[in-house]
Amino acid sequence: MAKDKVRRPRAETPKGFRDYFGAEVTARTEMLQAIGRVYRAWGFDALETSAVETVEALGKFLPDVDRPNEGVFAWQEHEDTDWLALRYDLTAPLARVFAQYRNDLPTPYRRYAMGPVWRNEKPGPGRFRQFYQCDADTVGAPSVAADAEICAMLASALEAVGIDRGDYLIRVNNRKVLNGVMEAAGVLDPADPSRFEAERGIVLRAIDKLDRLGEAGVRALLGQGREDESGDFTKGAGLAEEQAELVIGFTQARRDTAEATLARLRELVGTSATGAEGVDELETIAGLLAAQGLGDRALIDPSVVRGLGYYTGPVFEAELTFQTLDEKGRPRQFGSVAGGGRYDDLVKRFTGQAVPATGISIGVDRLLAALQARRAQAAAPAGPVVVTVMDRERMADYFAMAEELRAAGIRAEVYLGNPKNFGNQMKYADRRGSPVAVIEGGDEKARGVVQIKDLVLGAEIAKNASLEEWKDRPSQVEAPRDQLVAQVRAMLEGS
Amino acid sequence: MAKDKVRRPRAETPKGFRDYFGAEVTARTEMLQAIGRVYRAWGFDALETSAVETVEALGKFLPDVDRPNEGVFAWQEHEDTDWLALRYDLTAPLARVFAQYRNDLPTPYRRYAMGPVWRNEKPGPGRFRQFYQCDADTVGAPSVAADAEICAMLASALEAVGIDRGDYLIRVNNRKVLNGVMEAAGVLDPADPSRFEAERGIVLRAIDKLDRLGEAGVRALLGQGREDESGDFTKGAGLAEEQAELVIGFTQARRDTAEATLARLRELVGTSATGAEGVDELETIAGLLAAQGLGDRALIDPSVVRGLGYYTGPVFEAELTFQTLDEKGRPRQFGSVAGGGRYDDLVKRFTGQAVPATGISIGVDRLLAALQARRAQAAAPAGPVVVTVMDRERMADYFAMAEELRAAGIRAEVYLGNPKNFGNQMKYADRRGSPVAVIEGGDEKARGVVQIKDLVLGAEIAKNASLEEWKDRPSQVEAPRDQLVAQVRAMLEGS
Repeated sequence: MAKDKVRRPRAETPKGFRDYFGAEVTARTEMLQAIGRVYRAWGFDALETSAVETVEALGKFLPDVDRPNEGVFAWQEHEDTDWLALRYDLTAPLARVFAQYRNDLPTPYRRYAMGPVWRNEKPGPGRFRQFYQCDADTVGAPSVAADAEICAMLASALEAVGIDRGDYLIRVNNRKVLNGVMEAAGVLDPADPSRFEAERGIVLRAIDKLDRLGEAGVRALLGQGREDESGDFTKGAGLAEEQAELVIGFTQARRDTAEATLARLRELVGTSATGAEGVDELETIAGLLAAQGLGDRALIDPSVVRGLGYYTGPVFEAELTFQTLDEKGRPRQFGSVAGGGRYDDLVKRFTGQAVPATGISIGVDRLLAALQARRAQAAAPAGPVVVTVMDRERMADYFAMAEELRAAGIRAEVYLGNPKNFGNQMKYADRRGSPVAVIEGGDEKARGVVQIKDLVLGAEIAKNASLEEWKDRPSQVEAPRDQLVAQVRAMLEGS
Repeated sequence: MAKDKVRRPRAETPKGFRDYFGAEVTARTEMLQAIGRVYRAWGFDALETSAVETVEALGKFLPDVDRPNEGVFAWQEHEDTDWLALRYDLTAPLARVFAQYRNDLPTPYRRYAMGPVWRNEKPGPGRFRQFYQCDADTVGAPSVAADAEICAMLASALEAVGIDRGDYLIRVNNRKVLNGVMEAAGVLDPADPSRFEAERGIVLRAIDKLDRLGEAGVRALLGQGREDESGDFTKGAGLAEEQAELVIGFTQARRDTAEATLARLRELVGTSATGAEGVDELETIAGLLAAQGLGDRALIDPSVVRGLGYYTGPVFEAELTFQTLDEKGRPRQFGSVAGGGRYDDLVKRFTGQAVPATGISIGVDRLLAALQARRAQAAAPAGPVVVTVMDRERMADYFAMAEELRAAGIRAEVYLGNPKNFGNQMKYADRRGSPVAVIEGGDEKARGVVQIKDLVLGAEIAKNASLEEWKDRPSQVEAPRDQLVAQVRAMLEGS
């Protein structure tokens, strides 16, 4: 290989992945820490599984094709070793863990987990192949008290990260009620649950799109089907008009009070035993939430169904109700930032025995975006104080200044590039978002003083001031060396 | 497929991976948070790259074989897409990021990163295929002031997580000094650096094993080779006795003071220009560390070389100097918990231009083990207070009690299993490590009181008390309902 001809590697993030810098990382970390403290206070224990699972344990993506990688990143080392894959959520690993350690874990087992998950899907704007999830689940508790607890804890977590009361709603529904309505509509036969399974799937997905398609769109999907603006046709569930009426009635069953909503639901499920059970469960949950003072923030909303197929009972969703403006000044609604529900069959895959479970997953990136939009008016997080280098023989002096500032709780660093050109040091401080620069040349050293430059004020003056004002340089202050910390602090508090 | 014949998936962690539960997770998180706070205070910015990189960007494992997965987990989706891999450390992604964003990042760029890395290696006792790293690096600073800063910051980080002054040492050396000694010994020809490259590699690895093999073992490896206890023979560097003498002299060059050590090193490097430069750099670093008051915790130690080939200048290592006892009462030394150095060529792979860089990596698991061994005498972290369920119609009452305790900062939960058997509730509390259980049956409710059970004291009494003492049950207290929080707090503080 000729030395000069070696092709250099491209310095690129793989397609669909991204890097996170500085405040993007710390803001997320702080949010997750605040949520973790709430989960722990409620008796949930941390669990961290490895990113890698066997494809077999992950399930859903079983190796029925040559390369079982639909939706996941998967690989096989050798022909005789297991297919491995990156986890695509935090629920599948929880089911594996509970099945694996069930004799050693307390029952019920309350656990929380936070970390990245991976999806081998086509990336899109704002959609990446690696993103964070933050889940809390209770495994082994059949009572809907566990569902009510999850909803109350979710409210507590949202408030802990800075969403005020009145700015969010927890909406609760129950799949059993929906199944009761399907029974009443004749698309679910309790004696043969496999009949009409495809139709029910279409109904479920149609209701889940109510927000986006409106009542007319959902009606079309419940009937013969719907053609969208691009001309694409989606086949409908084929329900007759009276059947569709029942389903639409279900999504619109919300009334002003929980009592009235529950009464309406009882009408809709008719004689279905499953439906009645579902309404009873909703009543219990509503009662528990009201008793905990959440009556104003949690409500029964039959239009919430959640898209996932595996829910078997209560389902819930947290919605942010405030509006912010996007970069272009357009109103922006954040909508759902968390969702979950009861799923009683995931552990059964491993053990053959049904294990009741319920849980919530917080959409980390969406919640973070909402928080940041709210705080957009607040000052951007400041960079460190930069101690400039005027005399490269006196690095120890500059290090000592930075250490004094840090000991006083002020983020600080010494300039470590080539100090020759002072302009470069100022450009560096600018790029770092530094609020203050400290300068001590030979003259200052001899006189026992330091120059302290207010870079925030300086930038404002540079933008707005006349040449005269600029010359006065009121943004720079000379202070005795032993007043360094006090003077920097005063400047930081002033800015 | 007959329903009953479907083979169930195995509930197993993949080979070489493990799950982390409860305090294992939170102790690590807290340690990393404390280190992150120090890094940020020193002006380092967080960076989080994705777990997945192109194999090409990771380097070292270039696809020269059919499946380029030696040491890494790698896969290729389609024949015409990039090979992807899980990162094996945090330095390779940093080099990629700096090359990719160098026009937007400040120079020097100080960054820290913490997160899991993956190695496709044979797992062993305590060695897993996924583990945490915690790095801080300065890219674009040629001055050894950057190396001194990293060493001082490392000391600060160790103290922040609870390692006291006097319990650790930062050892510093310089690869240029070693190269100077090699020149003096005639195994490095500045005019043709590729000569004797293999021999120098053997010398490097031999010195790195000084701790384990002792002087005699290293001498054997410097000469003809060494046969270990199992009879395996490792080929030596083939140095003559005078040559080996110089190298051994280098590893033993440490004297009582930095001045004396530096003087001894100057003798050993003779007329080598590289060697003299290395000694000068060490002198500067030692001066800066002494000026920062680290003279007692940082020292020049020529026996530190670090195994990795890519270091080009200063190298450093943090060693814990205290001893603890392992589970069997045997003394246990923790040794090195962090290491790093200057590597000036990693970014060059991408850009063709050398970019100076220096950094440190903390061995997260080893440091955590050391901290836990130190704190082993302290009480185990307590589980939540458990509010038991005596009457399943009054879940709202029990939820209210748990919420009162949480509002007072006490971790608490309601029992959510089947409440029928009270013994099971107590077994659950035991498994959770609960310090206190709260009981409110119909009788207590009617009288406006609650029973509060001290489970820590109860366990002690059960172990040691006579039947008489046991009957007195002093570990259970009755309190008015409105004294619940005060009484639980008193019990927690007493235990």
